[in-house]
Amino acid sequence: MFITVEGGEGAGKTSAIRHMEQALRNNGLEVVVTREPGGIAIAEQIREVILDRRNVEMDGRTEALLYAAARRQHLAQKIVPALREGKAVLCDRFVDSSLAYQGYARGLGIDEVFAINRFAIDGTMPDLTLFLDVSPQVGLARIHANRDREVNRLDLEALAFHEKVRAGYRLLLERFPDRIVRVDADQPEEAVVRASTEILVKRLGLRAGEGEQSEAE
Amino acid sequence: MFITVEGGEGAGKTSAIRHMEQALRNNGLEVVVTREPGGIAIAEQIREVILDRRNVEMDGRTEALLYAAARRQHLAQKIVPALREGKAVLCDRFVDSSLAYQGYARGLGIDEVFAINRFAIDGTMPDLTLFLDVSPQVGLARIHANRDREVNRLDLEALAFHEKVRAGYRLLLERFPDRIVRVDADQPEEAVVRASTEILVKRLGLRAGEGEQSEAE
Repeated sequence: MFITVEGGEGAGKTSAIRHMEQALRNNGLEVVVTREPGGIAIAEQIREVILDRRNVEMDGRTEALLYAAARRQHLAQKIVPALREGKAVLCDRFVDSSLAYQGYARGLGIDEVFAINRFAIDGTMPDLTLFLDVSPQVGLARIHANRDREVNRLDLEALAFHEKVRAGYRLLLERFPDRIVRVDADQPEEAVVRASTEILVKRLGLRAGEGEQSEAE
Repeated sequence: MFITVEGGEGAGKTSAIRHMEQALRNNGLEVVVTREPGGIAIAEQIREVILDRRNVEMDGRTEALLYAAARRQHLAQKIVPALREGKAVLCDRFVDSSLAYQGYARGLGIDEVFAINRFAIDGTMPDLTLFLDVSPQVGLARIHANRDREVNRLDLEALAFHEKVRAGYRLLLERFPDRIVRVDADQPEEAVVRASTEILVKRLGLRAGEGEQSEAE
């Protein structure tokens, strides 16, 4: 089974994935936790081109195609082989990130960005996607609390962009109601983790009991 | 106006482009002659990832997405600005190469590869495409004559692939009859050059007289 976790910065994806992984292992499943580019050399090279600070002239469509290319290679070399071996794959961000960020927030169009991603994923869509829906203010505060830093003017300017990303994710939730499940990520982090794991357990028909395990950590 | 030249190896694209450029200049047009990645730093970096000999695990879809990304950046930084300035652009290979090579010959599907390229070019399709249709045997012999080298076993094995590429181009000719014009490139190179330039002159309503110019070279 292929599970992806999506949401804005500070939504609590990392903690949720750690607990979901444990819940899957408690049910005797082998689990691969990953995120793009995931240590895949070709995907890493592509990400270097995307992130290279000299590339200020990069066009938005070039960037979206490069993200799709890195996604394809990571999928082909890491996700698909794991799924074929019967493992569960937990992936931090996947196609919905491109749709929300490039497609909606950057204005390239959700349908347009989905067209290139449909080519990239070639039918391997997630079975379940958890959307950790955090308000940008809460997400930002959470990140800064973790890093012991004050919120500054640039952070506040970025809020408008993150509101757009959130609106993009909400459109995706309407569009893929069977695949995407929303978690209220404005709750305290423990509640976000609990809700995420409960959805996973219920959706996949797993035994529960992840709670004790996580308290023992 | 945006003109592309397509065809297999040894079709005579370079000579045809040189003479077409002269015909356009004789008509007082400013001309940009280019080919991907065309000296555009980001497109060059992407091509390096495609051509890197270490990247033997590159998936065919990753490669097609990278070609589309390099095409996008070259288009955005070089072709579109030239067209906006009223220049004629002559481009050696463009979208049809991806459709014939990746889409048809490599089996990814013409429609599938066109979907990602439609995103990459965002409406900037060539006004005219010359398809220099050469039989692989003739093209191969021409390349080897130029390089003073014998045809070897590997060359012959590659012929089957180049037959597929040719079949792909012919499908595109049927699909885009208004845009693509076929030139019989099994003719001697001078005849290929003459036919290409004549099509250009006729199609764009230019003054002829390229002949004298080319004889004076």
